Amino acid sequence: MQSRWRSPVSQSVRPGATPPGAKPPGTARPGGRTAQNRAAVVGATLSELAEHGYERTTVESVAIRAGVHKTTVYRRWRTKERLVTEALEATAEVQIGVPDTGDLALDLQTLARGVRSVLMSTVGSAAVRALVSGAQSSPEVARVLRTFWAGRLTKVIPVVERAVADGRLPQGTDAIELMKYLAAPLFHRILVTGEPVTEADADRAATVVLVAGRAGVFV
Amino acid sequence: MQSRWRSPVSQSVRPGATPPGAKPPGTARPGGRTAQNRAAVVGATLSELAEHGYERTTVESVAIRAGVHKTTVYRRWRTKERLVTEALEATAEVQIGVPDTGDLALDLQTLARGVRSVLMSTVGSAAVRALVSGAQSSPEVARVLRTFWAGRLTKVIPVVERAVADGRLPQGTDAIELMKYLAAPLFHRILVTGEPVTEADADRAATVVLVAGRAGVFV
Repeated sequence: MQSRWRSPVSQSVRPGATPPGAKPPGTARPGGRTAQNRAAVVGATLSELAEHGYERTTVESVAIRAGVHKTTVYRRWRTKERLVTEALEATAEVQIGVPDTGDLALDLQTLARGVRSVLMSTVGSAAVRALVSGAQSSPEVARVLRTFWAGRLTKVIPVVERAVADGRLPQGTDAIELMKYLAAPLFHRILVTGEPVTEADADRAATVVLVAGRAGVFV
Repeated sequence: MQSRWRSPVSQSVRPGATPPGAKPPGTARPGGRTAQNRAAVVGATLSELAEHGYERTTVESVAIRAGVHKTTVYRRWRTKERLVTEALEATAEVQIGVPDTGDLALDLQTLARGVRSVLMSTVGSAAVRALVSGAQSSPEVARVLRTFWAGRLTKVIPVVERAVADGRLPQGTDAIELMKYLAAPLFHRILVTGEPVTEADADRAATVVLVAGRAGVFV
């Protein structure tokens, strides 16, 4: 079963994402004009990436597709790099929640299935492929990809930290490294071997890091 | 320390690689004209891939670089696809031996370090990047990459099969899946996070699959 990109239109605007010059937070209520514009621009960015790749995606083409004035896009995001980073983060935010079930195995499985959802969605897959492909020749694209990764990895640190605090993982476990091992086999399938990522694949990736993590391999 | 591409000039020609129309095997002795041509063409293919990427590498440009007539290249390899596949396999053959030390942990470490050598060598890294990048938009490149992988994975099956026979890994362990897990975190570093692959990274990848393999995760 293939997951689909879900519009982030119902998400509230994150305070950290409010740019200088935007209306004060009180007026940017969920579902308001600002949130609607953001959703439209994020969706348009992902569609442009999916159809045309990173190089041929421009702030102008995104604005036209989103049906907003290009100065609106420039004012808020300033560069294509920031636009693409935020769009990718929005995909991941919607599809990869940060779980806290109290069960480490289940938390890791949920994370792995979230990564799978991004990689198997039409738009997420295309965006990741476009970026990984572009990153091999463009330092700018490589930076977007690294920024995206750094952002995602930071958010999942609490899952590992809670497990360490509870004694479910050894002291000193490197959360970032563990997360990379969770994601790498799933990326490898779509990027290198050209295989789909099934739920069973996601679950295996979660089990591998659970077993290795408990054995202290990520300390 | 960065590994370097070593010329396969001293390698004998594998029987399976002898095309129809080539001289009979008895005349293709190691170090002879055929082996020299093969080494030159393989080296030229890797250099072309590294400098120009898959799309702009042609049988003609490889022949010029190798200093052989293009009909020689066409007669033996017929298509760019076969040429690139064999060139990549030659890199991996030289740099990833199939170890048999009697110690599973050491065998896996040797394999992981071999993958690292390919990924960190100037030419191997460029070739892998060019292919992974190209595979995202070209079905032909994707096929080259899959063929290369299938070939490599088949060769390391014995390492896992011996371990299963000896009871060092559980019955039914999937050798192919285990090898993918060994390689994936190393590919992820160079392709996605843009980090170098150190020996410590290779050793960690080996330990992760050893621990997970023993726990029966690849059954």
